[in-house]
Parts: sequence; C-alpha cells; structure tokens
Amino acid sequence: ESYGFEPLQTPAFENLSLLAGKDALGAEAEKLIFKILRRGEHEASGEADLALRYDLTVPLARVVAHYGHQLPSPYKRYAFGSVWRADRPGRGRFREFTQCDVDIVGSRSPLADAEILSALGESLDALAVTGWTAQVNSRRALAALLRVYRVPEELGTQVLTTLDKLDKLGPDEVVTELVQRGLPSDTASSLVGDLAAPNAVDRMRAALRGDEDGRAGLTEVDDLISLSSPRLGADRVVFSPQLVRGLDYYTGAIFEITAPGFTGSICSGGRYDGLVAALGGGDVPACGGSIGFERILAALPAQESDARGPDVALTVLDSDAMLPMSRLAAELRSAGITTELFLGETRKLAKQLKWASGMAARLAVICGPAERESGELTIRRLDTAEQLTIDRNAALAHIHDQLRAPPSPAT
Amino acid sequence: ESYGFEPLQTPAFENLSLLAGKDALGAEAEKLIFKILRRGEHEASGEADLALRYDLTVPLARVVAHYGHQLPSPYKRYAFGSVWRADRPGRGRFREFTQCDVDIVGSRSPLADAEILSALGESLDALAVTGWTAQVNSRRALAALLRVYRVPEELGTQVLTTLDKLDKLGPDEVVTELVQRGLPSDTASSLVGDLAAPNAVDRMRAALRGDEDGRAGLTEVDDLISLSSPRLGADRVVFSPQLVRGLDYYTGAIFEITAPGFTGSICSGGRYDGLVAALGGGDVPACGGSIGFERILAALPAQESDARGPDVALTVLDSDAMLPMSRLAAELRSAGITTELFLGETRKLAKQLKWASGMAARLAVICGPAERESGELTIRRLDTAEQLTIDRNAALAHIHDQLRAPPSPAT
Repeated sequence: ESYGFEPLQTPAFENLSLLAGKDALGAEAEKLIFKILRRGEHEASGEADLALRYDLTVPLARVVAHYGHQLPSPYKRYAFGSVWRADRPGRGRFREFTQCDVDIVGSRSPLADAEILSALGESLDALAVTGWTAQVNSRRALAALLRVYRVPEELGTQVLTTLDKLDKLGPDEVVTELVQRGLPSDTASSLVGDLAAPNAVDRMRAALRGDEDGRAGLTEVDDLISLSSPRLGADRVVFSPQLVRGLDYYTGAIFEITAPGFTGSICSGGRYDGLVAALGGGDVPACGGSIGFERILAALPAQESDARGPDVALTVLDSDAMLPMSRLAAELRSAGITTELFLGETRKLAKQLKWASGMAARLAVICGPAERESGELTIRRLDTAEQLTIDRNAALAHIHDQLRAPPSPAT
Repeated sequence: ESYGFEPLQTPAFENLSLLAGKDALGAEAEKLIFKILRRGEHEASGEADLALRYDLTVPLARVVAHYGHQLPSPYKRYAFGSVWRADRPGRGRFREFTQCDVDIVGSRSPLADAEILSALGESLDALAVTGWTAQVNSRRALAALLRVYRVPEELGTQVLTTLDKLDKLGPDEVVTELVQRGLPSDTASSLVGDLAAPNAVDRMRAALRGDEDGRAGLTEVDDLISLSSPRLGADRVVFSPQLVRGLDYYTGAIFEITAPGFTGSICSGGRYDGLVAALGGGDVPACGGSIGFERILAALPAQESDARGPDVALTVLDSDAMLPMSRLAAELRSAGITTELFLGETRKLAKQLKWASGMAARLAVICGPAERESGELTIRRLDTAEQLTIDRNAALAHIHDQLRAPPSPAT
C-alpha cells in the first residue's frame, strides 16, 4: 500500500474457456487446471464449464480486459488469495496454495518492472528473510537466443520448457531431452553448454550482440538490475541466462528470488505485455510478481505467541454458576483479557483446575455456593497455587494486577 | 480469540463422498455442491471426485472425526474462509461467499451454545451493527412438535423445509405446499396456524408440555436465552417457533440473527451433535455459528480511507531521473509515506502534475536537470500550487512537515 498498490479480489472460479486454449497459460500449465462439472441438468454431460484459478495474473488480465476503462492507468493492484494446481506437489508445495501478487498494468516503463521487484524484495526484508537473491532474465533475450542458435520456431516453447529444468536435471539430461524433442544434437549441446557455463552471462551477451531484439532483451535485464539493485542492495539482483519461468505468457524481463534455507523460488514474476489482448482486451502492457506464501511460512521461525494459554480460566462448579461466570467472562473479555469458560460436565474443582493448568492459563477463578452467598470470588494463580478470596466488585482490578505481575520463575 | 477460539484453516476441497450421500448436509444442500472433475487419465470419464466446501462446519467435523485425538477437548475453533454454493443467488447473496465461523466441539453444556451466540453478538456490536435480534428455536422441540401434530415420520424433513419458508411465502402458500408434499390438509392448517399465530410461543409451549423430548427442546431454548441475553441485552434473544434453518445436521438449539437494513439473516448456527459421528468420528457433541460476511459488508458505511490519494507523487521528467526518483520513493515509503512514482511515457511536467492531481496526491516532487545539477528537489503542494526548491538532503523533513500541515480548506 505504501507503493500505491490497491487491493483487488476476484472469484476462485473463472470460465474454463478463459484459462484453456487461449495461450494464456500454455499447454504445460493447462494440464494442471482443476475443472468444475457443469451444474443443473447439464451435470450428466460430464463436461466442465468453470475452472479454479491457476494463478492471480490471468484473473487480473481478465478484469483489465473487461473493465479496463473503469480503472486508473497505470492500474497498480495487489491480491492475496488461494490458487489451485492439480499437481503432484513436492516438498513445500501444495495443490492449494496462497499467492501474494503485485502487478502494474498500463506501463511500458522499466521503472514499473523495478517497482515490482523492489516491492517484493522489501516485503522479504520486512519478513526477515535473509540472504535472498533475485535472478533476472528476459523472455525477449531468450527468444532472440533461440533464433541465434537456429532453433526451429515450432520447437521454441518446448525448448524453453526443457531449458527451465537445467538446475534440476543438469546439462546432460537437458541435452538428451532437447534431442528427444527434435533439436539437432550439436545445437542442443552448444546451447546448453553456453547456458550452463560459468561465464554464461558473457556468452549470452556475446551471442546476442548482433541481434536487435537480443540487444533490447539485454537492455530489459540491465535496466531492471540498475533500477532495483541500488534500492535492494548490491549483488542481490543478478543476470541469470538460465532462468526461463514456466508460464507462456511472459514477454519481457522475468525474475525469480531464492534464499538459503528455502525450497525452490520464493518469489517470481515478469512482464506479460500480450496477456490482456489475448483475453479480449486492448494492447495493454503489464508486469507483476508473486510471493510464494507457504514456502516462506514453512521456513520462518514459529511465533512465540502461538503457544500461550489464556489469561483466565473460569470454573463452573454448579449450574447456578453458569450465568454469573458467563457474565464475568464477558466483562473480562471486553477488558481485553483472554478468558476460557469451563464447558465440561464434571463439577469437581480439582478436575476443573487441572483443565485450567492443562491450557496453561495464568489464573483460575472459583465461585462456589459460599462465594456466591457472600458476593465474593476466589482468584488463584496457577503457577504458585496462591489464591485470594475477594469482593466480586474488586475482582477485575485484582485480575489485572495479577496478569501484570511476571509469571513465577519456577514454572 | 478473547474467548479462547483458535484458528483452523482447511482446504477449499473436500472429497465429494464426504459432502454427498452421508446426510451431512441434506438433499436440498447437496444439489448446490460444486463438483470437480477427476484429473489425469480419468478426466474423460466425466466423473467428479472432489467438491468445493459448502460450509465450514462439515470440514470442521471431518477434521474432528480424523484428528480428534490430537485436539484439545473441548476444541474451540474459529475459521474465516470462502464457501461455494451453485445457487441462483438473490440480492446480497453470492455463489462464492465468506463465512466467519466459531464452533465448540466436545461440550454438551448449554453454556457452549451461549458462548457461540455471545461471540457472534459481540462481534456484531464491534462491527457497529445496530438493532439486531437473535431468533432462537430447537430442532428437538421441532421434531417433538411434528410428533404431537401427527406428521408422518417420513415427511418430517420435507415438512420442516417447507415450514422454513413461512416468512417468505406466508401461511397460505406454506399450507398448500405441505398438502402437496402429502400432509393431510387439516394437519397442515393447524400446524401452520399455530406457528404463524401472534401467540405462537404460547401455543408451542402448550403443545409440547406433554412430550418429554418437547420439554427438553424448550429447555434448550430457555437455557440459551437465559444464559446469553444478560450478556447481549434484554429482548435481543427471543424464542421464534417458526425458525427451522435449512441444513439437516442440526439436532438441538438453533438460531438466526437479523438486523434492520440487512437482507436475510446475518448470522446463524446451532447444535449438531450427530455430525462428527456421521463423518466417521466418535459420538462428539458440537455447536457453532457463522457470520455472513458479505451481507454485513454490503450494509456497512464505506470507510473514508478508501478514497484517499497517496501522500506523495514523484514525477520522472527524463530517463536520468528514474534511478534518483526510485531511490527517493524507497526512502519515503520506508518512512511510512505512501508514494507513487510516475510510470507513463510523457516527459511533460504539466501532464505529470495532472496525473498527480488526478490521484488526489497531497504533494508532488519535481526533479529536472537543473535540480539534479544543484542537488535539489522541488516540492509542490497540489492543493495550493505553492512550491519550494530545497536541498535533496532536507527533502524528507520538509515532506514530513508538509504532510502534517492540514490540507487547504479551498480544496
């Protein structure tokens, strides 16, 4: 919000026709779409008409294609939400997971790409993720590279899909897969050899020097690095010629962020200038990125507060205690004191105190017939077993005092 | 959380077999389940194996049935999440909507029902929903009532479904529908006549006096009212013999909350002691309730902050300004100042100032070649058009001062 991004929430469903067969996601991603059976009398047809969203980018592009004239330009939106992929998920991945996206629609400026990467990087800093680096590449540069290496155009998407596996499979297996896909073996070897080389950056720059689109792609990479690394820290944003990104819709600068101790990439994104037009809108440029919520969550230390018990446990020693104890609960809770009320069947004090200790409550309140008669309550510290019987009207102040006192070091 | 409820998040999907055909939801609700097509090689079968959750109660009961031994008892959980119903939604209703649920699993105490109703009522108070009332009834009392009126047992569920429409259809249409469903017309007339009468409460009490289960049902109602109304306010919790609630899984006290200016009920819930066992768990009592998020949101006044523009708009008058302006943006944002950076193509100052005013920004920052040369920035108030050129290092303090000053009354 400090960047001026506005929230946008879209439904979990999209029309299946939007997600499938429109080059929005690409064939690999389309296989992973969860499809929803037609409802009503068409259910028996076994056909699907709706689908669960695969990411938050296609829904955004759909909103812009349909409602773009009602939106500011550039339109900067953020979205947090579940997305679904019919995958066999590996470690740290799920079939339902949360994406946190920022996107800028309507700007061709390299500043827009840099704003996206900076917003994500600063978010990671705010989450205390340390040591992260952003790998940057350009789809335009990659497309030029395939031309320079004389990869047949009809194999382009497949070749990129295979190159994307370089860090997982290693160079030899990637060459084998490229040859299986129909690429001549000397082309496959030299392409993979250059991309996997320690000086891959220099080789890619040299290879693209003579190609106009190649130079434009390298400028996208250089602009993104020069505009974002002064804000995010030197050496945190680096050119990575191997980076491809799975989805078909990217057209310009692309990036992924990795960090030690985290599985896979924890952020990713890029420029996708053609997507709004592909979904029926105008020729609107766009770029964006996403934080992989679960992957970060899995590696962050647990919050201490998760394990804390309630402040006060109220015993209920007979049915006449129900109403006064539930009124006391209301009074404590509205004073900001977390309060549990005994809801079990036993009327035995010892068992109810055991319940209170088991929850790690700080105090227990006891109100038997004697206390009710005299208008008093007994307040017991569960760590020291000290207790005090005091006037009902003084109870709230006493409980406040006891909660302010530090817990006994003995416990 | 002040009540001791813990968060629980469950997936959007459940196995279809859990939601359908197990009396978890009932036939009326089952028709509204969105079903997900089998994935992989089974897709061509046209069959569904997963379904989107219809509510948050069945998923909770499934978790308790499977993992109950790992949970505290009683288990008090809250959940906020989307649910999906393949409905033709009326005003204020959606096919995807948000429920906010609180449930207590493992307590038969009427205090548990009262805790649920109190938590929801206090939430409404916290949301500044005024004038709400809770209507309370008991499924046990309703079942006894059908027995007393000699409704054939096999018609019971259908008769309740029709009686649930009393407030929408009126008595005459409800009698007609009951007769269509096979109820003798004198039975239908006397049942509806009693329930729709101004003294329906007295008539129901009188009718149930001779039935043991009927008296137990009335006690459920009376306990819920007596334990919750002292906390929520007199006359806010009332016995409503017409209240049925659509879902089949309720077994005890049930309630709905309505408020002037809101469409339909804004909260609802009840006791569902059989659901965990129906889903394969033990004989575990449970009760809970839900806030209808969208219905409340639709009727609450909009927040003023929604319409506010950014604090600062940074112009970018040439490409050399990109980097210094994006560094300034980072500096302002980390000082808590909402900052927009110009991302368009024009380099004309007048157009960029128009962009800044159009967003209702408070200040614009200008940095042309002259300012860059002298290490200065120009800071312009957009309401008065006053501007000051100052040293770059003094800019942050000056911007802070300007933002603290009240906006000009002229705008």
